Amino acid sequence: MTGPRLVSILRQGSYLIASIHTALDDTEMTAFQHDLVERIGRDRARGVVIDVAALDVLDSFASWTLRTIGEVARLRGAVTVVVGIQPEVAFAMVALGMDTGSVRTALDLEEGLAFLDRVVGPRRPATATRGGPA
Amino acid sequence: MTGPRLVSILRQGSYLIASIHTALDDTEMTAFQHDLVERIGRDRARGVVIDVAALDVLDSFASWTLRTIGEVARLRGAVTVVVGIQPEVAFAMVALGMDTGSVRTALDLEEGLAFLDRVVGPRRPATATRGGPA
Repeated sequence: MTGPRLVSILRQGSYLIASIHTALDDTEMTAFQHDLVERIGRDRARGVVIDVAALDVLDSFASWTLRTIGEVARLRGAVTVVVGIQPEVAFAMVALGMDTGSVRTALDLEEGLAFLDRVVGPRRPATATRGGPA
Repeated sequence: MTGPRLVSILRQGSYLIASIHTALDDTEMTAFQHDLVERIGRDRARGVVIDVAALDVLDSFASWTLRTIGEVARLRGAVTVVVGIQPEVAFAMVALGMDTGSVRTALDLEEGLAFLDRVVGPRRPATATRGGPA
């Protein structure tokens, strides 16, 4: 991908924080999914936060992809939480019968990290991680 | 079974570490399942790690067998964790609607052992075990 960054994936201790900065088409969404799953292994992540606060639309493919990421991440040993679903987006998702399946959601990044702390256990200090740079 | 070892089951303290070295057919998978459950009793195992990192396919029978092992092991007093599910394998499993049910998953052997340490409690030292040799 060229041009402005569409997504970012940052490591914080044993967590990955993935932010989607703009609406992604299906190809970009699939690339994001594969990048994120690859990073889970490389960074030995035990928790993943996906921040969709910048999105004012979450179509059915994107919802399905978020569900898939959550399930694949679980098979790779990481818990996923989606944060920042805007009110209008949430209304639209409910109206259209879409949901995030087994993937947990939280209000924002702070609540998402607090959720991971509860279910994953204490965070490893950021300096003690192995694998690639954040 | 003759020829190269298809699987190995090693004891480490109160844990069993089972590695599947190559794709198993259904008969081999069933034999593996029975061997492993028998070893849980013989070695008085409290935790089981099943390493599938060598597999680039995990079909529905294999997934079902892993689930069964996990549930049978639980009835015999041992916690099971499956480790090393490769990203492509995880994507395929999710796409096909397969999962590991109630069996926990972790990234790799190290994370799997750390998980068992958390849920099973401290490991018995390897020298204090009874039963057959590791």
